[in-house]
Amino acid sequence: PEGRKQTRGGLGTHTHSTYSSSVAARSRRLVVVRAEAINPEIRKAEEKVVDSVVVSELAKPLTAYCRCWRSGTFPLCDGSHVKHNKATGDNVGPLLLKKQ
Amino acid sequence: PEGRKQTRGGLGTHTHSTYSSSVAARSRRLVVVRAEAINPEIRKAEEKVVDSVVVSELAKPLTAYCRCWRSGTFPLCDGSHVKHNKATGDNVGPLLLKKQ
Ligand code: FES
Ligand code: FES
Repeated sequence: PEGRKQTRGGLGTHTHSTYSSSVAARSRRLVVVRAEAINPEIRKAEEKVVDSVVVSELAKPLTAYCRCWRSGTFPLCDGSHVKHNKATGDNVGPLLLKKQ
Repeated sequence: PEGRKQTRGGLGTHTHSTYSSSVAARSRRLVVVRAEAINPEIRKAEEKVVDSVVVSELAKPLTAYCRCWRSGTFPLCDGSHVKHNKATGDNVGPLLLKKQ
């Protein structure tokens, strides 16, 4: 109802904790960084990208499956994790399926 | 040699392109966002996290392997991709291994 509108708390008001106030004092602009998607491009029209492998149909003794979401041959690994790791300092790599 | 030291170009100098200058004028603080690692926590002591599955040793008809790097049972999927997708708007999911 009218008269009960609340001012949203924000940096610049005087209602904040010591921590928030000191953040406000130190920085001129509040930058909120949201947790990031790890898949920027692959099959974004799908709500959830799930792939299935019928293991009896594997053709080769060793097949590498991508877990970095950067492969040009997803769901297979094409080695793109190397570039991703170098660019970001990450340490991701594929899942190897072995027909013993 | 002495006398040839160069001043590094930076915002605030007058040697920049129109684009950089206008960026400097608009923002008080230059925030550089680096491409992000997709694995924040799992086995960070390893240079590259690679796992192998000998498919003949799979115990169950269906086994889900994690590709979101958020599973508490990595390399297996424990369903944590759901929370990750919700928090970030992402659409990642596991790789399912099927013994037909
Ligand atoms: S290309 Fe993604 S894990 Fe190799
Ligand atoms: S928990 Fe990572 S894909 Fe399911």
